[in-house]
Amino acid sequence: MTHSVEWCEDHVRLLDQRLLPQEERYVDLRTCDKVAAAIRDMTVRGAPAIGVAAAYGVVLAAQCADSASRTDAVASAISQLAATRPTAVNLFAALERMRCVQRDCDPQLLVGELLREARTVHEEELSASMAISSLGATLFPAGATVLTHCNAGMIATAAHGTALGAIVEAHRQGKVSRAIATETRPLLQGARLTVWELVRAGVPTTLITDSMVGHFMRTSHIDLVIVGADRIAANGDVANKIGTYSIAVLARAHGVPFYVAAPTSTVDMSLRSGAAIEIEERNTTEVTSIAGIRVAAECPEVRNPAFDVTPHRLVTAIVTERGILRSPFTRGLKGVAASHGGRSR
Amino acid sequence: MTHSVEWCEDHVRLLDQRLLPQEERYVDLRTCDKVAAAIRDMTVRGAPAIGVAAAYGVVLAAQCADSASRTDAVASAISQLAATRPTAVNLFAALERMRCVQRDCDPQLLVGELLREARTVHEEELSASMAISSLGATLFPAGATVLTHCNAGMIATAAHGTALGAIVEAHRQGKVSRAIATETRPLLQGARLTVWELVRAGVPTTLITDSMVGHFMRTSHIDLVIVGADRIAANGDVANKIGTYSIAVLARAHGVPFYVAAPTSTVDMSLRSGAAIEIEERNTTEVTSIAGIRVAAECPEVRNPAFDVTPHRLVTAIVTERGILRSPFTRGLKGVAASHGGRSR
Repeated sequence: MTHSVEWCEDHVRLLDQRLLPQEERYVDLRTCDKVAAAIRDMTVRGAPAIGVAAAYGVVLAAQCADSASRTDAVASAISQLAATRPTAVNLFAALERMRCVQRDCDPQLLVGELLREARTVHEEELSASMAISSLGATLFPAGATVLTHCNAGMIATAAHGTALGAIVEAHRQGKVSRAIATETRPLLQGARLTVWELVRAGVPTTLITDSMVGHFMRTSHIDLVIVGADRIAANGDVANKIGTYSIAVLARAHGVPFYVAAPTSTVDMSLRSGAAIEIEERNTTEVTSIAGIRVAAECPEVRNPAFDVTPHRLVTAIVTERGILRSPFTRGLKGVAASHGGRSR
Repeated sequence: MTHSVEWCEDHVRLLDQRLLPQEERYVDLRTCDKVAAAIRDMTVRGAPAIGVAAAYGVVLAAQCADSASRTDAVASAISQLAATRPTAVNLFAALERMRCVQRDCDPQLLVGELLREARTVHEEELSASMAISSLGATLFPAGATVLTHCNAGMIATAAHGTALGAIVEAHRQGKVSRAIATETRPLLQGARLTVWELVRAGVPTTLITDSMVGHFMRTSHIDLVIVGADRIAANGDVANKIGTYSIAVLARAHGVPFYVAAPTSTVDMSLRSGAAIEIEERNTTEVTSIAGIRVAAECPEVRNPAFDVTPHRLVTAIVTERGILRSPFTRGLKGVAASHGGRSR
């Protein structure tokens, strides 16, 4: 398994996801500043992986500080990391756990305890992704053609993957005839990362542009859509990569089930609905340039929301490590979030 | 006005649309072979512009041949040009007109008569696009936000444009507050060409990726969608750039009117429905590479249909130079196609 985030003795090692698939390069980070920068510039991406990387970033901050300033250094690291990206809630959930350790722990033991908690966050994501993969695979009919968007694989989750984990597990069970990956503009996580992971896992894979989803739903048989999530509100509204909502509408119009696979760390019970989820607007050069080359004409306004919100009414089921939830989602989400130990902000 | 296709004394001049917006370069073509290659490699693109270029290509074939072989040369040029691209019907309609001239004309006068017919095809596209622009503009409410896909502008039509012509005319009348252009993967005709044309025309323009359409329909007010067409079947089914169908489904789901603007040369009464329209599948490198740089991971299957079919039930109205047609389309299309003088194949 490729590790997108790893703790190596005394520092964090990240797989630089911006260079894939051309290059599989790892970067060693020894300061919290560098981890924050890596989250912001998407060296590491994917909601669960961001949470794990941030937790290790807090450890680095504690490690670098002398004992007198350690508590302050940790508090400031948490603020710094929380400001990197606004949409994925796993980031805030992981940081909140680190904050609780800092608050309750003897300062002498702080580095060790923070590392233990960060490792626990990481291990929980790992076991959650294994459970999600197994449960998600049960949703696949025999000979399924499945469509996914963006990348919810092992490199996005620092584990086995959520949506991609389910596809790979269903394929292992002989149930997948083909996976269709959308390229996922602007940053092409589908073309670069999802295709790379699926092909390595031996899954028969087809790459299409985002604009082809409707055409293939109408002219080919697609059995299900499965995607990850960056934040799920208490009512089941799902924030995920821009383009997810369009696919959900198309799935509904064609009678295709639309599944979301995400760990309970993605659930934010503090938000009643998706309307309150902050949508990150990223740099417009991601749209106007590709691989460093300007492709668009000069345009006075370019928009680049990184995520959109899919209303719960379009979601057939949400696959968490604690079970498959179906509409109405409110009660089910409350149950899985509560049993998770109050991770919400 | 920028001319995408022009007859210059004794040869064809094309604007190389592949180089826009970085470079505005014109190429002078003096053989039919070169015109056929330019259509195939999309130096010239857009259904009406392809038809005009092909008509001039036939003239070049006649001009290059000696008088003994002229008739054969014209017949073989028509076959060659017909094999360049399968979806846009304007190509076949223009070639059929050239074939009729060849059949009925004294071989001594053939070059002149073919040129006269090609010029007529060109002028008819020009006046059709003017009429479509005026009629299309009547569909815009005051202060409209309009979304368009791909490029149905002056460079696609060898004239004023169809969908873009209507947007520019409505803007001239003070009715457009904003135009949203989708980038239109894989070849980015929206980002490269539509943005370039709209900004030059002074229209406030926003560029988005194809995957953002649903998000903006849900979160912003969009008053109408207007697109061009590559072929319209007798029942009103519309073949247009890949991604059009997805936008039509999204428009319906959000109660946004979906208009198609196209000259009657785009109507193919020989096809009962869109199911019979041949969809061109282009080279997969258009998907896997951008600006010559490989962006996608190695993938065993990549799909690249250049067009999709939008069923007539999703089309609010079709704007032709002979009037605005509304559902059911069959009778209206029969009327405008008949009055056009039997252009169908």
